[in-house]
Amino acid sequence: MKKLALTAVCMVLAASGTVVSAQNAPAPAAAPAAPRPAGPPPTPALGDGPWDVQGADAKLHVEVVTKGLDHPWALAFLPDGGMLVTERPGRLRIMRNGVLDPKPIEGLPPIFAPGIAGLTDIVLDPNFATNHVIYLAYSKADPAEGANPAPNVNSTLAVMRAKWDGAYKLTEVKDIFVADAWYGKPPLPPKCCGQGPAFGSFGGRMAIDAEGRLLVTSGDRNFGEKVQDPTNHFGKILRMNLDGSGVEIWSTGHRNPTGLYFDAATGRLWETEFGPRGGDEVNLIQRGGNYGWMDVTQGFHYNAEPAKKGTRNVEGMTDPVWAFGPPSGNPGNLAIYRGTSFPQWQGDMLVAAMNRSLVHFRLSPDGHVVWKEDLLSNLGQRLRDVRVAPDGSLYILTDETAGAILRVTPGS
Amino acid sequence: MKKLALTAVCMVLAASGTVVSAQNAPAPAAAPAAPRPAGPPPTPALGDGPWDVQGADAKLHVEVVTKGLDHPWALAFLPDGGMLVTERPGRLRIMRNGVLDPKPIEGLPPIFAPGIAGLTDIVLDPNFATNHVIYLAYSKADPAEGANPAPNVNSTLAVMRAKWDGAYKLTEVKDIFVADAWYGKPPLPPKCCGQGPAFGSFGGRMAIDAEGRLLVTSGDRNFGEKVQDPTNHFGKILRMNLDGSGVEIWSTGHRNPTGLYFDAATGRLWETEFGPRGGDEVNLIQRGGNYGWMDVTQGFHYNAEPAKKGTRNVEGMTDPVWAFGPPSGNPGNLAIYRGTSFPQWQGDMLVAAMNRSLVHFRLSPDGHVVWKEDLLSNLGQRLRDVRVAPDGSLYILTDETAGAILRVTPGS
Repeated sequence: MKKLALTAVCMVLAASGTVVSAQNAPAPAAAPAAPRPAGPPPTPALGDGPWDVQGADAKLHVEVVTKGLDHPWALAFLPDGGMLVTERPGRLRIMRNGVLDPKPIEGLPPIFAPGIAGLTDIVLDPNFATNHVIYLAYSKADPAEGANPAPNVNSTLAVMRAKWDGAYKLTEVKDIFVADAWYGKPPLPPKCCGQGPAFGSFGGRMAIDAEGRLLVTSGDRNFGEKVQDPTNHFGKILRMNLDGSGVEIWSTGHRNPTGLYFDAATGRLWETEFGPRGGDEVNLIQRGGNYGWMDVTQGFHYNAEPAKKGTRNVEGMTDPVWAFGPPSGNPGNLAIYRGTSFPQWQGDMLVAAMNRSLVHFRLSPDGHVVWKEDLLSNLGQRLRDVRVAPDGSLYILTDETAGAILRVTPGS
Repeated sequence: MKKLALTAVCMVLAASGTVVSAQNAPAPAAAPAAPRPAGPPPTPALGDGPWDVQGADAKLHVEVVTKGLDHPWALAFLPDGGMLVTERPGRLRIMRNGVLDPKPIEGLPPIFAPGIAGLTDIVLDPNFATNHVIYLAYSKADPAEGANPAPNVNSTLAVMRAKWDGAYKLTEVKDIFVADAWYGKPPLPPKCCGQGPAFGSFGGRMAIDAEGRLLVTSGDRNFGEKVQDPTNHFGKILRMNLDGSGVEIWSTGHRNPTGLYFDAATGRLWETEFGPRGGDEVNLIQRGGNYGWMDVTQGFHYNAEPAKKGTRNVEGMTDPVWAFGPPSGNPGNLAIYRGTSFPQWQGDMLVAAMNRSLVHFRLSPDGHVVWKEDLLSNLGQRLRDVRVAPDGSLYILTDETAGAILRVTPGS
């Protein structure tokens, strides 16, 4: 019986015509039993496309814009139609007319980039068209460690402000914010729960809110014991003026906030967060909110321990709007769709997920999830960033060594 | 490339050891492209079990209690540890000590059972232990049509009240409610949107609320044009005294409400509803609420037309807490878990779904979905009803010709 069912599944797959994500297709007759793989599966090479994908309420046409980026992390649309793209190892790249400029922009400070540390988000100044100012978040090693520091040095999250000449040069480069989260040089204090190395979990997403303030996510550096201490910047979201003055802890209790989106239409600040195993989250961020880490999480610590104060409904802590797992969702960045290309998606949430899909959430007017689908899982790529372009199309970055920019428009 | 990925998937499936639902397993390397089947796949025969299923936060042990029921629709736990079970074709059965009594209970009135019409829900009177009174919802044909009416006669939803002798006999059988939804005899008025036959969409779920009133769901009979008319019982939830007096239209705008659960811990009334294609819903029912049908639905009419007033956010209409599709969720009954066997599930929602899974929703304290998983999809059965037993285990009915009762306890 079981064997027959499996054969049937393989036949269905082999007969595959239109590319439709497996999650959207009805379950086969006997949903087959699959063992959990020991580790994440390897990423298949991205084909050349294009692909036409049938979503629940939209047809998507997916094109590869470029495959020439190394772990692209963030994308910003320029007023002239071009784009700036960060690469996590520490490069800032230009896309113009769909072509990746082979020459990176010069003038970045040293970027500390072991593991998943590195150059992360980019945002343009609200007056970029006239002042050419950009903000870049990055991991920064103790300058005393020299130009090529080892992974086990003190490091922290920083945000630089720079003026870009429109070609290959940054000037007036200056750190406007250096998180009070220096950590990593042995001997390290003891920590619990099987947490990872100090050169991970930096956060590093940014957004500018309705009042023109800069919001910056700072991760817990895999040292969650520090997060509930309100006197540091481990596991916090910070809000500051655009010159870095007036830093305020906007919210706390975060592990690794890898996505941040300010939705001007509602004034809501959305965050995605890498939790521990099975504890990934989408949060609606309120000023002064405490999001629980590391006392409360739906997931399990990496040594399989449950969280000290449980999974939810804990006094003084705000639960997520959505929890992903287990299995983990591995969220990258997110966006609220307010474009015109997919009118049926107005106000919906899109999350680029490193478990290889674009997660499409329908939100109620008061900001709760009422429906969900996984898109683009047919591509099998880790997705790091999703942005809605001025023309309403989506731009998606794959978190791969041969990292791509994908563009999604309505299919026909 | 694509062919290689498919081979890999087949190998993983063939190597399957532990039974883990496919939805819970991490996606394979290249999520394979599967075409949408033309129709629902056939149901595989249910094995003998037991099965151990790993959920996101619980191990489940699933046993077959019986396979001897024909489309069982509802189950009620008796104070003595037994159970009464309805079969849709029109039989009421007794389970004692895990054994299905081969002899049905006698005394039911004629049950109109073409298509998916028939005997539906059962609830016990709050004073059942002393008065032995039960309530049964069923589809009723015009008595003038005789004992064996054709499918195309006038019919409606009714609720009977009866006294059960504890053995094989019902006495004092009386209709306490006959819905004002007589319909089906040609010539039928024209109707739009590719709606199905008049002998479907009866609703037929019941619950008793905190004030001891009986709530009854009445479907739209595939004649959605009637639903927004407040003077009939098409597509309504009705509330009445236990003798059928004082009938009030509690809510409207329903298509086929196949699940109803009153959660005493919160006072919330939950409903599941078969919408049109991709329009299945979970609703939180408020007195006087209008749930949209057939002007508003996330799904598409069966002739592929969109709904007249759109998918959501329509003035005067209440949107669902959860929408299932597309693809459709095909929800049967639901329950809020308040048992002791799965302490981590307190307040969670379980939906028996005829797309072959038990859908497990985590709810926020204010009743929004924050997380979801599909369980038991490894069994490949259409699930009609889910009940939490007094001992905290789950009892689930499969909607099959060889219909089963499954019992779910914590696995080890």
